Formats: sequence, structure tokens, C-alpha cells
Amino acid sequence: MVEIDPERLLQDLHALREFGRSGPGVVRPTYSDQDIEARNWLRQRMEAAGLQASIDGVGNVIGRSPNDGPALVIGSHSDTQPRGGWLDGAMGVIYGLEIARALLADPATSHLAVDAVAWADEEGTYSSCLGARSFVGELTESDMAECNAEGESISSAIERAGLSGRPTASFEPDRHRAYLEAHIEQGPYLEEQGNRIGVVTSIVGIRGIRFQFSGQQNHAGTTPMKRRQDAAVAMFEFGHRLQSEMAAVASPTSVWTTGVVDVEPGAESIIPGAAALTLQFRDADDNVLEAMQNAALDLARAMTGESPVSVSGTPLREKITPTLMAPELRDHIGTAADALVPGAWVEMPSAAGHDSMVLSHHLPCAMLFIPSINGISHDFAEDSDEDDIALGCQVLANAAVSILTELQ
Amino acid sequence: MVEIDPERLLQDLHALREFGRSGPGVVRPTYSDQDIEARNWLRQRMEAAGLQASIDGVGNVIGRSPNDGPALVIGSHSDTQPRGGWLDGAMGVIYGLEIARALLADPATSHLAVDAVAWADEEGTYSSCLGARSFVGELTESDMAECNAEGESISSAIERAGLSGRPTASFEPDRHRAYLEAHIEQGPYLEEQGNRIGVVTSIVGIRGIRFQFSGQQNHAGTTPMKRRQDAAVAMFEFGHRLQSEMAAVASPTSVWTTGVVDVEPGAESIIPGAAALTLQFRDADDNVLEAMQNAALDLARAMTGESPVSVSGTPLREKITPTLMAPELRDHIGTAADALVPGAWVEMPSAAGHDSMVLSHHLPCAMLFIPSINGISHDFAEDSDEDDIALGCQVLANAAVSILTELQ
Repeated sequence: MVEIDPERLLQDLHALREFGRSGPGVVRPTYSDQDIEARNWLRQRMEAAGLQASIDGVGNVIGRSPNDGPALVIGSHSDTQPRGGWLDGAMGVIYGLEIARALLADPATSHLAVDAVAWADEEGTYSSCLGARSFVGELTESDMAECNAEGESISSAIERAGLSGRPTASFEPDRHRAYLEAHIEQGPYLEEQGNRIGVVTSIVGIRGIRFQFSGQQNHAGTTPMKRRQDAAVAMFEFGHRLQSEMAAVASPTSVWTTGVVDVEPGAESIIPGAAALTLQFRDADDNVLEAMQNAALDLARAMTGESPVSVSGTPLREKITPTLMAPELRDHIGTAADALVPGAWVEMPSAAGHDSMVLSHHLPCAMLFIPSINGISHDFAEDSDEDDIALGCQVLANAAVSILTELQ
Repeated sequence: MVEIDPERLLQDLHALREFGRSGPGVVRPTYSDQDIEARNWLRQRMEAAGLQASIDGVGNVIGRSPNDGPALVIGSHSDTQPRGGWLDGAMGVIYGLEIARALLADPATSHLAVDAVAWADEEGTYSSCLGARSFVGELTESDMAECNAEGESISSAIERAGLSGRPTASFEPDRHRAYLEAHIEQGPYLEEQGNRIGVVTSIVGIRGIRFQFSGQQNHAGTTPMKRRQDAAVAMFEFGHRLQSEMAAVASPTSVWTTGVVDVEPGAESIIPGAAALTLQFRDADDNVLEAMQNAALDLARAMTGESPVSVSGTPLREKITPTLMAPELRDHIGTAADALVPGAWVEMPSAAGHDSMVLSHHLPCAMLFIPSINGISHDFAEDSDEDDIALGCQVLANAAVSILTELQ
């Protein structure tokens, strides 16, 4: 197989951390000065690794192998959340660089092609997975008018960053035969189970339902309890009963959240006449999502019959269906993991979204996870053990070699 | 006894309705042009009834009987809510006028003294029960700086209304031996029970508790259900369980309301780390209020022990203790009611606040209620049956005669 260089890997990862560093965390949102500086640095590191590197018209950094295909695309995104951790995205990018570099340096693998990538704006500062969508031709002209929180459009930002007029890199079906992405888990499962590598089975789908509670606003002093149609009381009962109804149909990794809650008119002396809450739920299996949706809507219907307040649920239009990772690629990663840490790896869903969701509609994709300390992510405290960081890269490198060997 | 004139009573009530009339309702907030015009008209009607009438330095209209004391003060307030009903306050004011008038006109009662009043700003456009507080010497210099929603102070409003420099009427302990106030119920109890007169036992006390739910904000995708400390879920359970805990210690007329609900940070993809709700509860018995407060705080303590979210309750400082009406006065009203509508009257608490709350600290007070159609109040739709309006005035007049006769 091939030997990656753990020291070089960690050095590059720490160097990338300096662009936008804030304490232990990183502030490097897409198209910020720090983001563009980081991309220029990445391009140079890719060049130094023997790749033909460039930054494309939306900010994607592509380090193209000098070898002909079949090639693997390996990478992730180098932009961060507004207050992000140092590994989210960055680790997968440096894995791509290190694996391409290690393969080119070893006579046994120097004929294999790995194109390293750092996608733009996976975090959606302007538009989620912007760079990956551009790569596969899914970014439209009208998408370019989308704006960040300060109201700057993608087009304006690209011009400001000095990227306008550049060609955009494109997926080449004959060359790009698979995409591999490594990432921190961002959750606690691997750490809790004592596993060191996760092989992602699928990226969870996300659905949402907006529930409305319609009662009767009234005087909080003179309206007897039995005559009330209190929307807040109905919402409390619904929110409470929802927990067991969802658990009854959920998978062990399903999650559901009621993050948005409103009560009208919101005065101490007035019985609420209206209330609303938004339920978001995620699972790797669309059938489970469907069952969860039905359970929540059934509860709304049941409560409308039982209580003096009417409860209605409207599924939100923006839903994400679960994304299956390619089974043949997963097998290569699992085999590579089992060889290095026998029994200390596991197949698992990804609870968060990734560029692989976009790319998997065009080429086979697979993802590898390493443990997140305390499951923390999207936070300055995000971190992973350096031994896990090195191990993950070696597993993915070995898998890349076996995949490419099979493709020859 | 004495005969009131139902036709004259209703005529005056309808005439008062014209000041600020808006459809079936009335917009006559304190110190508005309509309010001052109404007070001038009331003063004239009191003069015409043989009373020595004046508007005092805060807008109270006092129609003083030409007779020496002992005297009864009878009335209510003539200001309305921003969008008020035509009877709230106004009915009790016209009852005072009609009873004073009827007694003076009847040789059998013309020696008895009734001082009719129309208090200023019971509704708190500037400061609740402003006029009644001035009358008993509880209005301080600093209170005069309080403002309405538009930022106008009481002092400025009084000057604008042409009232500044006038003397303020004062409670005279030797003369004013009791205060009687009639009011619409503002709730549905009398109508539901088929009763036509309510004799108020006490005005309910009001307490409040602010509950805080402290959990851990986290990623709604990557945080497993069993590791969550979801403040919204804890609030739903608390709000649901609260209903049965409160009902277990409440009296049949207790009410409780959770009108203010907050969840932080309020985003679909973030597990709420904090939530809060405000509980307000009312009862005529301070012991019941204490039991309700303990039940709610006990539930918070129990849930902190059971759940991963800590729940804490802080009683609000602004609480109102229940105000007992004078038993000897209640007996007079009850006897008068039973003579006219045997078995169709009832003793009951008042779920809303009234000027009697302020006055009862200085002289014996009693209140009479008549039914509100559908229990509606503080709304343009507020109304009562004209037969009930007339009956209530006759009952209160008879009670006034028997009280004054006893005081001679």
C-alpha cells in the first residue's frame, strides 16, 4: 500500500488553521479575506505536491493529478461556520492533499491519479455546497444572486475576491470515477462506542413540519378554566406527547427538534389565542422519515378531536432526502479500516449534511468519519485526537489505492 | 324602600355611551377629549339631580349630596379601555347618579346622603385606579410623572385637560361610611348559572411566577436524543404537567395562564438551550394562591431532579392580594336581591380588579354584579340585558337605603 506522513499532514492542518484563527477556533467564512488567503495557500501546497493546481471561478481549489484517469476526487471544503472549529472541512481537504502527495511520491502508486479539492461555501455563508454544485453543473445563473447575511451577492463577492472571469472546474465523467470525503463525525457515537473509524452508510434526510394551534384569545382573569381554548396549553400537551409518538417509530439514530416556538399575543394577562412550533426531524432512511411525519401529523389530528384547540401541521417544502453512499466504495474503506484497527470501526449514518450529498447524484461517493471529542462541532471547542486524524488519513489512503487499483 | 326610574337610568347610560362611541363600543380613554366631555356632562347631570357636583384636580367627578352624613359613596369609573365596551365602569357611575337622584326625590328617603362618583383612570391609561388613589391620599407626587403609551405624563395630561390647579376631592372618614360599586361581571358565571345578581365576596388576588428552563444549546442533527438537554422539551412537559398540579389545589373559581413563552435561540436546526414561561394565577383566597404557588414551584423542583434540564421559578414581585368585601354590606345587598329575585342571586368573587380594591383599605366596600352576555368584556361586543341593568340598580338602591337607615 502507501504510507502517508502523519507529521506533514498535521503540520499542514495546523498551518491552515492559522487563516482566520480565533483562539482554538477558526473564523473563515466563504469569500472572506482569510478564506481567499487560505485558498491561495492551498493552491501552492498542491503545486508543491506535484499537482496542477488552480482556483476556479467560484473559489474551488482543484489540484489535478498529472496522471491520466481513472481518477479519484478526494477532499472537502475549506470555508468555516461564522464561529467554526478547526477541523470541519479543513481535515478532509488536507487528507486529499496528503493522499495525492503520498501516492505520487511512492513508486508503487505514482501512476495512480488523485485530484485533491477544497470546495467553496459548503457551510452556506452564501449558498450551501456552492462549489460542489458548480462542479457538477447544478449552479444556475439565478443562484448567483443569492446573498450572505450582509446582503452581498455571490457575484459581487466573487468579483471582490478577484475570481470573476476565471473558468469553473467541471466534473469529467470519464476521468472522475469516485469521490471520497473524510470528516470529523460532529457527534458522539464513535467516541461513546470506542470506535476510531466510521464508514458512512448514508447522509440523513431532513424534513420539517410547522404546527399551528388555533384557540381563542381571552381575558386571563374572567375566563373560567373550563371555557378556555388556550393555544399555549394545547402546544405544551402536543410538544410533550410528541416525544413518545416520535420515539415509537424512530430508528436508533433518528433525531427530532422543536427549535422554533411562538405564542400570541404574548401577554401575562391574556389567554393565548394562537401558538406555533416547528418540528425538524432527521433519519438516514426515507421510510423512517415518512413514519415520523405520519406520527406527528396523526397526533395533531388526534388532539384536534380531543381538545378545544385545533392543531394543524403543514410539512415544509424544503426537505432533504437521505443520500446513500456507494456500497462498493464503503467496502474498500471498511476493509482498509479493519486491517489497521480490527473491530474498532463501524458503519454509521451521517447526521449532518456534506458536499457528498450533491456529488453523489453524479458519481459514486463515500465518506469516512473520525471521532469528535465530546461530539462537539460548529464551535471553537471542536477537536479530535491527533492519532485519530493520522489514522483516518492512512485508512482513506489505503482505500484510495485499492479502489484505483481495481479501476485500472 | 325607593323606586329607581329604569327609563331615566337607561337614557343616561345611552347618553354617556355617545362620548367616544365607536359602533357598539366606546373609545374613551382617560383625559381624551371624549373623556373630559363625558365628565362635564356627568357633572351637569349630577347638578340636575340636586347634587353639588364638581370635577376635581385629577378628573374625578363628585356629586355631593346636600344632606349631612353619614353618607354612602356610590359609583365607578367613566374612562374606558382603548377599545372598550359601553358598560364597563359607565354602568356603575350612572347607578350612583340614579340612586342619589331617586333617594332625593322620594320624601321617605330624601334625608339620606348618597355622594355619586365617577373615578378617573381605573383602566390605567396613565396609572390604574388613579382617581380612587387620589381620593384616599395614596397618589404621590412621583406618581404624577407616570405616562400613557404615547409618553404623556399625568401632570401634562391634567394641564392639557384644563384641570390643573383644581382641588382634589378627599375621603372624609366622618361622612363617607361605605362605598358601593356596581359592575358588569365581565365573565360568564352568572349567565351560565341563570343568576341575575352577583354579590361580590372578594376581588381576586393575582400572583405570577417566571419559570426558566436551562439546558444545553446544540446541533439538531448530530446530537443524539439521549444526550440532549432540550429546554423546549422540558418546558412542554412542565406546561403540560402544570395543568393537573394546579387543578389539584385550585378552588372552583381559580384561574391560571401561561401567556408569555420564549425559546432560545429559536432556530430550526438548533436544540434550544434556554426557555422561559410566565405563569399568572388568580384566586379570591390568599391561602389558595399560596397553595397554587407551592404546587408550581414544587413541580419545577421535581422536574429539575428528573430531567437533564434545570427548571427554576421566581415569584414576581408585583402581586395583588385578594380584597375582601365588607360582610355586613354584602348582607344588605344579598337581602335586597333575594327580595326582588328570590334564589336568582349568588355570592361570587370578582375575577377582575376594580376601584374597590383601593378604597377598601380606607372604608367598608361592597360590589354588585349583573350578567355579561356571553361573558364578553374589554371588547366592543360587551353588553348586558336591559332588564338586568335596571334590576341591578333597584337592588343596589334598596341596599343603599337599608344601609343608610341602619347608620342613622
